Amino acid sequence: MTEPVASASPDQPGSSAAQAQQALSLATLGPKHAADTEPYHIPEGDFAEVARSLSQQFATSAAARDLAGGTPLAERQALRQSGLLALSIPQQYGGLGANWVQTLDVVRQIATADSSLAHVFGFQHLHLATVQLFGSPAQWQPWLEKTARHRWFWGNTLNPLDKRTLATQHDGYWEFSGKKSFTSGALDSHMLVASAIDANNGQLLIGVVPTERSGIRLLHDWNNMGQRQTDSGSALFERVRVELGELLLNPGPLSTPRSTLRPLLAQLIFVHVFLGVAQGAFEQAKAYTVEEAKPWFKSDAEVASKDVHVLAMFGEFWSALEATRLLSLQAAERFEAAWQLGDAVTPAQRGEVAVAVFAAKVAASRSGLDLTSRLFEATGARATHAALRFDRFWRNLRTQTLHDPLHYKLQELGDWALNGDFPQPSFYS
Amino acid sequence: MTEPVASASPDQPGSSAAQAQQALSLATLGPKHAADTEPYHIPEGDFAEVARSLSQQFATSAAARDLAGGTPLAERQALRQSGLLALSIPQQYGGLGANWVQTLDVVRQIATADSSLAHVFGFQHLHLATVQLFGSPAQWQPWLEKTARHRWFWGNTLNPLDKRTLATQHDGYWEFSGKKSFTSGALDSHMLVASAIDANNGQLLIGVVPTERSGIRLLHDWNNMGQRQTDSGSALFERVRVELGELLLNPGPLSTPRSTLRPLLAQLIFVHVFLGVAQGAFEQAKAYTVEEAKPWFKSDAEVASKDVHVLAMFGEFWSALEATRLLSLQAAERFEAAWQLGDAVTPAQRGEVAVAVFAAKVAASRSGLDLTSRLFEATGARATHAALRFDRFWRNLRTQTLHDPLHYKLQELGDWALNGDFPQPSFYS
Amino acid sequence: MTEPVASASPDQPGSSAAQAQQALSLATLGPKHAADTEPYHIPEGDFAEVARSLSQQFATSAAARDLAGGTPLAERQALRQSGLLALSIPQQYGGLGANWVQTLDVVRQIATADSSLAHVFGFQHLHLATVQLFGSPAQWQPWLEKTARHRWFWGNTLNPLDKRTLATQHDGYWEFSGKKSFTSGALDSHMLVASAIDANNGQLLIGVVPTERSGIRLLHDWNNMGQRQTDSGSALFERVRVELGELLLNPGPLSTPRSTLRPLLAQLIFVHVFLGVAQGAFEQAKAYTVEEAKPWFKSDAEVASKDVHVLAMFGEFWSALEATRLLSLQAAERFEAAWQLGDAVTPAQRGEVAVAVFAAKVAASRSGLDLTSRLFEATGARATHAALRFDRFWRNLRTQTLHDPLHYKLQELGDWALNGDFPQPSFYS
Amino acid sequence: MTEPVASASPDQPGSSAAQAQQALSLATLGPKHAADTEPYHIPEGDFAEVARSLSQQFATSAAARDLAGGTPLAERQALRQSGLLALSIPQQYGGLGANWVQTLDVVRQIATADSSLAHVFGFQHLHLATVQLFGSPAQWQPWLEKTARHRWFWGNTLNPLDKRTLATQHDGYWEFSGKKSFTSGALDSHMLVASAIDANNGQLLIGVVPTERSGIRLLHDWNNMGQRQTDSGSALFERVRVELGELLLNPGPLSTPRSTLRPLLAQLIFVHVFLGVAQGAFEQAKAYTVEEAKPWFKSDAEVASKDVHVLAMFGEFWSALEATRLLSLQAAERFEAAWQLGDAVTPAQRGEVAVAVFAAKVAASRSGLDLTSRLFEATGARATHAALRFDRFWRNLRTQTLHDPLHYKLQELGDWALNGDFPQPSFYS
Repeated sequence: MTEPVASASPDQPGSSAAQAQQALSLATLGPKHAADTEPYHIPEGDFAEVARSLSQQFATSAAARDLAGGTPLAERQALRQSGLLALSIPQQYGGLGANWVQTLDVVRQIATADSSLAHVFGFQHLHLATVQLFGSPAQWQPWLEKTARHRWFWGNTLNPLDKRTLATQHDGYWEFSGKKSFTSGALDSHMLVASAIDANNGQLLIGVVPTERSGIRLLHDWNNMGQRQTDSGSALFERVRVELGELLLNPGPLSTPRSTLRPLLAQLIFVHVFLGVAQGAFEQAKAYTVEEAKPWFKSDAEVASKDVHVLAMFGEFWSALEATRLLSLQAAERFEAAWQLGDAVTPAQRGEVAVAVFAAKVAASRSGLDLTSRLFEATGARATHAALRFDRFWRNLRTQTLHDPLHYKLQELGDWALNGDFPQPSFYS
Repeated sequence: MTEPVASASPDQPGSSAAQAQQALSLATLGPKHAADTEPYHIPEGDFAEVARSLSQQFATSAAARDLAGGTPLAERQALRQSGLLALSIPQQYGGLGANWVQTLDVVRQIATADSSLAHVFGFQHLHLATVQLFGSPAQWQPWLEKTARHRWFWGNTLNPLDKRTLATQHDGYWEFSGKKSFTSGALDSHMLVASAIDANNGQLLIGVVPTERSGIRLLHDWNNMGQRQTDSGSALFERVRVELGELLLNPGPLSTPRSTLRPLLAQLIFVHVFLGVAQGAFEQAKAYTVEEAKPWFKSDAEVASKDVHVLAMFGEFWSALEATRLLSLQAAERFEAAWQLGDAVTPAQRGEVAVAVFAAKVAASRSGLDLTSRLFEATGARATHAALRFDRFWRNLRTQTLHDPLHYKLQELGDWALNGDFPQPSFYS
Repeated sequence: MTEPVASASPDQPGSSAAQAQQALSLATLGPKHAADTEPYHIPEGDFAEVARSLSQQFATSAAARDLAGGTPLAERQALRQSGLLALSIPQQYGGLGANWVQTLDVVRQIATADSSLAHVFGFQHLHLATVQLFGSPAQWQPWLEKTARHRWFWGNTLNPLDKRTLATQHDGYWEFSGKKSFTSGALDSHMLVASAIDANNGQLLIGVVPTERSGIRLLHDWNNMGQRQTDSGSALFERVRVELGELLLNPGPLSTPRSTLRPLLAQLIFVHVFLGVAQGAFEQAKAYTVEEAKPWFKSDAEVASKDVHVLAMFGEFWSALEATRLLSLQAAERFEAAWQLGDAVTPAQRGEVAVAVFAAKVAASRSGLDLTSRLFEATGARATHAALRFDRFWRNLRTQTLHDPLHYKLQELGDWALNGDFPQPSFYS
Repeated sequence: MTEPVASASPDQPGSSAAQAQQALSLATLGPKHAADTEPYHIPEGDFAEVARSLSQQFATSAAARDLAGGTPLAERQALRQSGLLALSIPQQYGGLGANWVQTLDVVRQIATADSSLAHVFGFQHLHLATVQLFGSPAQWQPWLEKTARHRWFWGNTLNPLDKRTLATQHDGYWEFSGKKSFTSGALDSHMLVASAIDANNGQLLIGVVPTERSGIRLLHDWNNMGQRQTDSGSALFERVRVELGELLLNPGPLSTPRSTLRPLLAQLIFVHVFLGVAQGAFEQAKAYTVEEAKPWFKSDAEVASKDVHVLAMFGEFWSALEATRLLSLQAAERFEAAWQLGDAVTPAQRGEVAVAVFAAKVAASRSGLDLTSRLFEATGARATHAALRFDRFWRNLRTQTLHDPLHYKLQELGDWALNGDFPQPSFYS
């Protein structure tokens, strides 16, 4: 499948002109950790309020930035300055000490305004969890401290299904070489979690390297129908040196029940992004219906917002969102409890988290897709005006919900419900 | 799978022979409060266990009794003896002092085995709540005490949509005359909550009378496709005397925010019955699929319970049940909180309970109907054998979910979600 | 709405009393081909009218017979007398010469009143097609002639998934011994199509034998939640002698593209039964809604049949039925065209019929199940009265739609739509 | 709701820069009827082939033009040159003489490649039908002849729900003044069908005027999430003179059963656009799944196109499309039959067309929306790449299906199915 569009449309997002301009912006914005200061403190009770305030700020430009694509530099900077990049970092390492229920709720809150930012923000905390789950305290303690102190953004070059990057062992270090797709948030980051396949034995290796490490090239090639500001394009590793101390070997990836919590956190982040997108879409649809929509000429209602069919539709939307909200909350609470157990967590306890997360994912995916497509049946035709970009809710959700197939989540849930077999841990389960 | 039903039940539901035999049984069983003793005490922690034990007992004959219809005298007696008729009665009046979350969970537990018994058991507590909400303490305190002490069963002759019973005022008392439909649980009860329309002004009056009060005739005419042992037939009131002190006038029906909690409890009981039916059906379908079903000859699976389509279907069932479970629990918890507020409960607080209850009802109705119809696609054709009576799950749920139309619940939810207007209290909202 | 059922049917389905009485009726009714006369002639234009008239007759007792179960002897006799048992038999062999579009439309028409009778009537013609497709003209010509002349009913003991009946070769004949399930229409039939597994090589053999052949025992053991008068119970073969000339060996089962039309006809019969059930349910729901239902007290409508939600629901029902009707008609027309091609039919032409049939089956199954369950939301709670037996539409359809799993039909359709691979012929595809 | 995007994004479609460039193109392309020659003749058997060829040509640039928005001048020119603008014009007036089944099939064919072009092409023929249905032969015969001879494109300024344009009567002529929205295809057209409200009595007047008539300004302001090249923006009428002979007064709009066929043709065009979009999306999804998609790592299949879940999904898609295809064909055939009846068509015959059209619309809307959203679950995440613009299928369909609310179509269908009341003719029914 060729891609005739990019070259044919010089003014479009993702074209080389746009990329040039964006590169410029990256250059002129100055050092990425300009905000480098003492950690910003937020009292626990204010997490939600700070998130809400940031969301409101992001919302004002979300439609325009969805059109533009590229890296949301100003908004990333706002996230840095807010202090929320250290949200899940324990206070003893300079972070805000939020638990996972609180952290995920902030992800959801941001997604009500902008699901691209919610994704990379959620993954910031996924990366911080990853080093805690796959690595040794001697590794992750300083990383967490520096992240809190210097307000580092972490990016993703881990995609375990993309096996084109190989690792070769050298005397005292390793080299990673090859391509990697779906590197969300790698651009404008300070640290990367990167994976490669050991050329000798096919084993997956995961390392942590500074984004500016020599040999890493981020290709600015993300141009997608949805989640347009996640920078989920490609990275090129050319003989990137990875020190032994940068490899997460102890306990290593998915090697213990506790370490298998990592994919569940990734899934939970998606769940909260999906729920946030749907809630944001609901609020927009509600406001438009109340303020702008006209009742159909056959309706008995004087205003669109009292039309019987419109009411029933909003009843459907809201019921489905409410179910999703409860499932998501239950899953987050179970995850937090399992996290608290640390190494004591059993496969069965891990399994209970998994099924709660999967059930939430099924509901969040479906209720969100239904809402973001059908909301137009309440608002009416005029709400398809491009300036509103109401289609972005569906585009963002449709894109992100494809991360891994829902059918297999249902299959795994069924295996548990019917046979008592918990989902087998993998990077997607 | 044996087939105990066919040979065990020679009589036809609703036939005159069956009715005769039942009338006989009612006569020979002796006084309805044969179990009249000191209140039976169950520690709070054991409510669920007692309910589970009763359910197991009810389950053994549920299919046969579904076929037979009529009044489940033995099971009603077991409920009396269990002490659970006093479950929601405060301990100071001799009851078990369960809160509503606990009480509704017992309703749900019983419904996993038998939704007819769950209905009348749930309504037992609805009637006890009704007198507390619509009547004065001087009225309901003795009724609660006697109910606990004598293990009274309460029955329903309240149907406010059936306006054929008229009330006429006499010197110091009233007379109720006319017909009343859907009188669930009136047969084999000790007390009735009855309604009539004041012939003078069209106002609804609600009274409490002993079932044996002169002039009350229960017609034994319930013969339905589902909920076959709820005795929801007709009653005939012929100049039934109702004393002034038996009328619930202070504060009276739906007259205060607190009193409007009554229909929400009715709806919550339905929600828990629906959820219980679905859970019971799920367990039966699961057992049959694992133990009896054969994989389709085109399936790659060696057993039906590992067929990909069967797994995905159970994944769907379970996810939907889990969402319903959480919505039902939230609704019960909000109801309990509002109940605790007593007269201080505001219309807005009442409204918050209502929307939680309605959302749960939407989910419970739909997930249950889907499960009870589609379960056969997992079990296969042989599970339609009459002896299993697996169709009763759908028949029971289909019948009970028609109590009031779901479309109007969705409309009311939409009015709240879109316009902030809470459902207007009525006997159905 | 009167309630003729309860008093008219004192006996229980499947009870020993009912079985005894039924055995009696079978005995006293006299020879099965009492109607043995010259073939009854119906002009082509009158097939539908005769079918409609029979349906109306069947409809008057359908609810009562659903309750009773057992063999509908009077109705089978009416079918014999109508001449329709020879509907699909070419006129040169004394039949009515209907094509398959006409024949299937009669099946559908009967199913609007009684889906049990529609099933066995449809299978009458499936059996007549089977001998034409699997056997030689020297075999089937006399069978067709005698069927037309003597008004024979054919029954089913073919179930190819039930491999308990074995065939052993003797000098000049075979013997069939073993059990066979799902023998729809075998009771009160004159001829049987029977299958057995060749004990030597595991091959499927199909023979045609008179029902009264020594060694055949029909067990009267059908008792099911739906399709209650199809007599789809068990048969026992004890050293049943099958002559060489009674075996369908030339061309034999599923051995040529033309012979693989047989399972498609079976599926088409189901499709028309499903459509007929749904149409019958629709008409009943419509009549009840217009004549009996009351508008909900919150409805703006003065009659239930003008309530906005009720209207939208009937709009849904009707749209879905209309789509199913067109798909079924197209499938029947394609089948008839392929039948006309005779031995010239190619695998691809056969495949085109198959996908048309499967698409119709998917639509008929789903639209029917949705309608037969949701119709109660239009009619309201009172339509669950047992006397109406409106639940039988769902019970009948739910039972019959389980004949073979819909999931695999969808899978096969997808394989064709996506990969161009036609369904692989089998007894179910 | 403000529209911050347009001004904030100068390089975007719909911005003033883009409009300037487009205006330029319109100017430099030369006279709109450059192709003015003798009518191009296409034999009846070749309509579909010509349409297919044009579709293939449109398909190559459809994604790029969806991105660009604006007027598809080259493609409109290709339509002119193809001769298809005269497709429905009877041969006696120089047209190709296609009936409506053939004409609508060409609309559908074009929509498989480009639903914007399909919309304006379909409306070309709607306008030609409108003058025949609302006007006198003396009016429409020359218009049809000239359209065939000069290859005129007709545009829409009729929107009857937008009542801002008023008509005032002058001596021997009228003046139309005011705004009009949703003027699809008005840009780059030669003739307009325009409506206004008689300022004296509120009656709707419809006139036909050349697009270049003094006082007509087309605002180039269409910028929408879907159907981006339909130019459905606004027109401004400033004292536009409309001659008496240009008003369609005899019989006038919706004044006779025959004239009420007009809205049914409009709805049928939508139906065929929807079906075409879905079929186009299906083909793209199929090709991508076969050629590009990877099976999920948990799948047993070696290629994505043999994954069980993918197969079942395509089975669903195809079944739904097939039902829609048959419903659409039936509706087109019924419309053609009613058209042939001319003034003899009765309200009941018109009603039969209406319910067929509405049933097709329900199916086309729903099956299309489901397919265009769920196709990504078969193709996987990589198919969300912006270059493919696979989201345009959903965006186009979502936009166009909002023309009038489906709920009211269902309500009208229900009124017919339940009460026998045909849809009341209006510009939308």
